[in-house]
Amino acid sequence: MTQQTVKPESVSGTRDLLPEDAIVSRTLTARVQTVCESFGFVPIDTPCLERWGVLTGNDPDFNKSLFRTKIVRGAEDKDVNEAELASADSTLRFDLTVPLARIISAYPDLPRPFKRYQTGKVFRGERPQAGRFREFTQFDFDIIGSTSIAADVEIIQMMYTIMRALGVPNFVIRFNTRKVLNGIAEIVDCKDKAKEFFRIIDKADKIGIEGITADLQRLPVNAFDENALALSDAQIAIVQRFLALRGLGTTETLEKLSALIEESSNPVAKTGLDELRTMSELLQNLAIPQEFWAIDLSVARGLDYYTGPVFETVLPDMPKLGSVLSGGRFDGLTNRFMPGSNIAGVGASVGLDRMIIALQTLKLLPPAKTLTQVLVTIFNPELKSASMVLAQELREAGINTEIYLGDDSMLRAQISYAKAQEIPFVMVLGPEEHEKGLVQLKNMAARQQELVKRSDCVTVVKSVLS
Amino acid sequence: MTQQTVKPESVSGTRDLLPEDAIVSRTLTARVQTVCESFGFVPIDTPCLERWGVLTGNDPDFNKSLFRTKIVRGAEDKDVNEAELASADSTLRFDLTVPLARIISAYPDLPRPFKRYQTGKVFRGERPQAGRFREFTQFDFDIIGSTSIAADVEIIQMMYTIMRALGVPNFVIRFNTRKVLNGIAEIVDCKDKAKEFFRIIDKADKIGIEGITADLQRLPVNAFDENALALSDAQIAIVQRFLALRGLGTTETLEKLSALIEESSNPVAKTGLDELRTMSELLQNLAIPQEFWAIDLSVARGLDYYTGPVFETVLPDMPKLGSVLSGGRFDGLTNRFMPGSNIAGVGASVGLDRMIIALQTLKLLPPAKTLTQVLVTIFNPELKSASMVLAQELREAGINTEIYLGDDSMLRAQISYAKAQEIPFVMVLGPEEHEKGLVQLKNMAARQQELVKRSDCVTVVKSVLS
Repeated sequence: MTQQTVKPESVSGTRDLLPEDAIVSRTLTARVQTVCESFGFVPIDTPCLERWGVLTGNDPDFNKSLFRTKIVRGAEDKDVNEAELASADSTLRFDLTVPLARIISAYPDLPRPFKRYQTGKVFRGERPQAGRFREFTQFDFDIIGSTSIAADVEIIQMMYTIMRALGVPNFVIRFNTRKVLNGIAEIVDCKDKAKEFFRIIDKADKIGIEGITADLQRLPVNAFDENALALSDAQIAIVQRFLALRGLGTTETLEKLSALIEESSNPVAKTGLDELRTMSELLQNLAIPQEFWAIDLSVARGLDYYTGPVFETVLPDMPKLGSVLSGGRFDGLTNRFMPGSNIAGVGASVGLDRMIIALQTLKLLPPAKTLTQVLVTIFNPELKSASMVLAQELREAGINTEIYLGDDSMLRAQISYAKAQEIPFVMVLGPEEHEKGLVQLKNMAARQQELVKRSDCVTVVKSVLS
Repeated sequence: MTQQTVKPESVSGTRDLLPEDAIVSRTLTARVQTVCESFGFVPIDTPCLERWGVLTGNDPDFNKSLFRTKIVRGAEDKDVNEAELASADSTLRFDLTVPLARIISAYPDLPRPFKRYQTGKVFRGERPQAGRFREFTQFDFDIIGSTSIAADVEIIQMMYTIMRALGVPNFVIRFNTRKVLNGIAEIVDCKDKAKEFFRIIDKADKIGIEGITADLQRLPVNAFDENALALSDAQIAIVQRFLALRGLGTTETLEKLSALIEESSNPVAKTGLDELRTMSELLQNLAIPQEFWAIDLSVARGLDYYTGPVFETVLPDMPKLGSVLSGGRFDGLTNRFMPGSNIAGVGASVGLDRMIIALQTLKLLPPAKTLTQVLVTIFNPELKSASMVLAQELREAGINTEIYLGDDSMLRAQISYAKAQEIPFVMVLGPEEHEKGLVQLKNMAARQQELVKRSDCVTVVKSVLS
């Protein structure tokens, strides 16, 4: 062997899901998928690799850090292969929404409305931080081609159904609409710097009204400081009056918001108010309990492409976690491919990594090292076949059953394996039992064992498991 | 808008799964997952991005074409960012086996045996061809840390169970062991060129015995032609006698193989024969019908890392498709990380893209545009809420139910949507019905409709669906 030893290291900003985490992820994904399908959403799958122009829209202001790829053959030196830039254009996607817009534009025969869900890896080149990865998994569901506010409400209804399906007892879906925010930005004369204005407003949870006030007041530090909003005291007072509506009940929020908007007679804000009113009415009619949702005028969501309602889901038991499930309306996302098409879109995305942390921290999914329900041991080589047949019978009855395949064939090692893996039941088929048509069934947690008729095995195991 | 229009094109060698394909993929994945879990396998997930050295083992002979990545910020020129080679080392994985070896080496506390399944995208830089993609999905299941031949048999048993779970009526799992092949290579003096020898043998289906003979006889075209085997007539005759055992029954194959190996008294081949004998016995004891498996001495499988039994699954109804489910034993794959560790491994991989083609061509999964069972129409804005409540009731009863959200609110457009999407049932809640506590239920295929009591809706729909 002339090869040097390689360190089994992973790439910075990526992470491995070992079984305990992967089992949670799998259960989580399956439940979200079931909810999506119950609402009539269909799956699609698109590649991780997309063209650079598709991802960036050739926008000169695009400022995300992306993973571009190049094909390198064999063991060639990794740094000097510009000549092999065979697919210089291909780049790892940073979300699932832009690829969706590509799909909508590339396949005009897709139905409208098009309701799809998709899960997959997305990649961002930003510096990794605690809980922020360069490669992570998203689960998105979106409705394309519906301008109806019922579509926005359906997304909130799905968010609610998902949180319930995951067994989360305390959560609040907070929503707002960019139209009210756009209106406020117009009222306080920030329309040209709306992005910065929204960014500040959105930090209400983190920095409070005082922090927001300070940020909005901030004067430019030099001539190039385009982000300073430098709001006047009168303007600040208006923003504060809007934000003071946070935490009121729905009826009161809508009433007071209506009064504020009347005063300013801003038409954009007025349209937004109507949206919030209709959404609230539909949510009430759908009997989604008020404790699980709230209008929150500070919710802006960072992504540039939102155009109407925006939503997020926070867990009062984990206030610092941020939103685990968020989204909004993004009309016009296909415009980069089909100028003027203005196709409507609204959807949400589950932050799977964050949700896994939440479910584990709140102990909502019991931690599991295994999905195996029964381990069948192999007593000796002669009984290997009989044990394998027994295991297969249990499987066919829907019981997850493992046969012991370790190289240490001592019965003690087999039992230790079951104990370490927290497999609840062990079946031992020894020569004596085999002869008498019996099997030993060990209940690992109860530290009990009994002799069961070979022919009754399936029935007995099924009853002890249920 | 100064931005130019972007074409909604995908990267060469990648493909989109639109709903009809994605639904097949989803069902396929779910069934394979269920089989894996029934055998006590746990999921893991690893990143698409791995270190170059991890993937290639720093092997100077490594000759695959891989996608290397570099992080590029914003809209900077794509070709001049060598300086930004922030993670020059990160490369897209080409399979799920090498990452598994990394996991085994990096986390010594994982149980042994470790039985894991994993599904995910893999990436290869080779020129795309019909049915061969640069980015595609694999589903792997492997047993790590078991030298027992029962582990090899369990993998074959799982392959059989998966094919049955997918409803494939005709398939053959062909298996062999590298040890018999290594033995034959020694007997015909090809040990140093075993890789080329296996590559030729493995083409039996494609080029027949005549083609193999020609390839084995081939003389070097020049002094650098290291791949020419130039077998003598006597050596060819030996290979032909081995390959003549293809297509015989298991007992006859084993008997004649035994006789051939006795003659040559090659110890490696002898060990291989014992493996094939034990595997056949266990498969017979497990009552896996003989029609679904066969020893085939031409099966070699291309990958270098196989060390023992190798398996593949072919569909007699689609002889040109190649194997849809294949694998083998690959002891020692962790050696690049832990020299001398020689950890045992055996597993198989479902070629999802190929399997989707097979299931669709053989019409084994009914094509579906949607998973929706009922469309609830919205008769007019006043009845929107009542319709949404009705839809929610159906969902809560486990019926996949869509509410119509299209912008064309004419009832005719709603019915057309259901027809185009092949949604089997439509419910119409008009003002008259609403007043009388009734709902109209349309059976789209039967072109029938009936009035159903609002309170009986769930029961009636459940019974017509079953």
